[in-house]
Amino acid sequence: MTSGEAEDVGGRPTARILTVGDELLSGERSDTNGPWLAARLQKAGFRVGGLESVGDAPGPLEEALRRGGGSADLLVVTGGLGPTEDDRTRPVVARLLGRELQEAPWVLEEIRRRFRARGFPDAPETNRRIARVPEGARTLANPAGTAPGLLLEAGEGRHWILLPGPPRELRAVWEASVLPVLDDLHPNRPEADRVRVFRTTGIPESALAQALEPHLVRHPRVTVAWRASLRGVEVRLSAGGDSAPDLLQAVEEEIRDLLAPWQWEAPSGDLAEAVLHALSSRGWTLSLAESCTGGRLAGRLTDVPGSSRTFLGGVVAYSDDLKEALLDVPPVTIREKGAVSGETACAMA
Amino acid sequence: MTSGEAEDVGGRPTARILTVGDELLSGERSDTNGPWLAARLQKAGFRVGGLESVGDAPGPLEEALRRGGGSADLLVVTGGLGPTEDDRTRPVVARLLGRELQEAPWVLEEIRRRFRARGFPDAPETNRRIARVPEGARTLANPAGTAPGLLLEAGEGRHWILLPGPPRELRAVWEASVLPVLDDLHPNRPEADRVRVFRTTGIPESALAQALEPHLVRHPRVTVAWRASLRGVEVRLSAGGDSAPDLLQAVEEEIRDLLAPWQWEAPSGDLAEAVLHALSSRGWTLSLAESCTGGRLAGRLTDVPGSSRTFLGGVVAYSDDLKEALLDVPPVTIREKGAVSGETACAMA
Repeated sequence: MTSGEAEDVGGRPTARILTVGDELLSGERSDTNGPWLAARLQKAGFRVGGLESVGDAPGPLEEALRRGGGSADLLVVTGGLGPTEDDRTRPVVARLLGRELQEAPWVLEEIRRRFRARGFPDAPETNRRIARVPEGARTLANPAGTAPGLLLEAGEGRHWILLPGPPRELRAVWEASVLPVLDDLHPNRPEADRVRVFRTTGIPESALAQALEPHLVRHPRVTVAWRASLRGVEVRLSAGGDSAPDLLQAVEEEIRDLLAPWQWEAPSGDLAEAVLHALSSRGWTLSLAESCTGGRLAGRLTDVPGSSRTFLGGVVAYSDDLKEALLDVPPVTIREKGAVSGETACAMA
Repeated sequence: MTSGEAEDVGGRPTARILTVGDELLSGERSDTNGPWLAARLQKAGFRVGGLESVGDAPGPLEEALRRGGGSADLLVVTGGLGPTEDDRTRPVVARLLGRELQEAPWVLEEIRRRFRARGFPDAPETNRRIARVPEGARTLANPAGTAPGLLLEAGEGRHWILLPGPPRELRAVWEASVLPVLDDLHPNRPEADRVRVFRTTGIPESALAQALEPHLVRHPRVTVAWRASLRGVEVRLSAGGDSAPDLLQAVEEEIRDLLAPWQWEAPSGDLAEAVLHALSSRGWTLSLAESCTGGRLAGRLTDVPGSSRTFLGGVVAYSDDLKEALLDVPPVTIREKGAVSGETACAMA
């Protein structure tokens, strides 16, 4: 049942991702390139072993490249390919792989063309840095910017792909130039894992685990991931290989009745949508009388497209006065049982 | 000028972050815990060397812990502390540090108390896993969930801090229990780096670098980071130590005139706010006649609080007919010069 055992199923090539930039460690922003690439690589049949972010400093960058490049069939690096002094991916990679940096005239010519097309007389000299690529690198066209991607052989059948950091450029290079290269490098990749996600609410993770795990351990080729949040608990089953659909089907049938009391489904993955769907399928409508939630329940429901067919509206009776005036809650109930009590809630309904 | 040289300034303790969970590699979501922790650690005077995400499988988790734990004064790990089979941080850490897992009765008692307070008769047995902690670990109270944080000595003066993965719990443990511990472990940390960010628009990164770099290289203790996006180019200067404010001030004075033609400032970091402020400070107002941008310019401007004082409104003349009818563009101009032309734009104004 462990991910570890499932790792060998299917014989996928492995990939690691390294995203470069001080801003990724300053807390200013979350790395969007890493997860984007991880999803694309998984979909393309790679097993993604890890995702790392490092700053621009050459020391940590070199260490991270050494670690990442030695432990995966494919290392994808983003960032540090621009024209400024803090863009060090090219020289650090060249040093690590024992290559010289050489000016690629076709890269420089393409940069000049881009600048002239935008009305500049020529490209600033600093762009020569972009054109200095490690010898033997294959350039990957960038339809959305100046710095091309680079593909390098890293020994022992391993490859490194360097991509520009701006997300728009990264995605453009990926679509235009990387996907065909992956098919060249690893022509017979198995299909991506099949995944089945079960969403539950109203049961603690530990209680659900106690009920399901005796069944799940019988299927060592199915990887199980649990995720708990305020919204509820998700159970994610995945499996690879030709038998994956049958295997997941068998597990699902085994745990279906155990899940049923807590399970919900919604195309959007939103519990509010599941609630509205459950009501509308019975021909019911919903009105709300909210107190502490202060309108947030109504907000969650109206966020769902088409909610107006089921959700009629609500009253937000935050103060005790409003509970009495709008919802006819007897003052004695609030006084004796408290505003937050089953009795007051029933009287509000 | 390189970050590498600046690394030794101030003698900060170093930190690495490791976030654990299959969902971080599936592309379903960006890691929010990692950047949140990176910012907190930097603010607390640590130098964050790297941020890594791994899946739940024990093999890659163990490798990542080995790498991360051996190269920093402090390793902060989030995730994998829950009650399910895929929560492996505790056993893998224990094995790596050569410790036994031992049931901590006070942890189990606290979990039971939480369950009973929520109306359950007792905590499900699977929670015993949460209470099995590596011997010698100090527990860090979690006011928001069942799994406490854990502090471990990892040899050679190094420490590992394990935190729960749900962001709400992670943040609660951090505020309540981690900050005091950091002061114990590293009592005399220097202040965080001073940072000064300059925002520009309308000049390519390579051209701005050509103008500024001859000045920046004269200040090796100032770290420079460049960031280019569709919005423009940001130059970020940082420095540590007591002289940092004077140093940054000196650099700023040196480059001020070079930046001036392209520089903009806005408290929100939003170019639209800078445009509105520049107009309102002159007592001007703005109306728009948009074509291809289809109302997005107006949207960007109205997103700025208080924009109604300066931005009066606009016309979105997407079709040529509307350009003629609403904006009195002569049909001959569109026909002879094209809808996307300087002449048509002038006639729209």
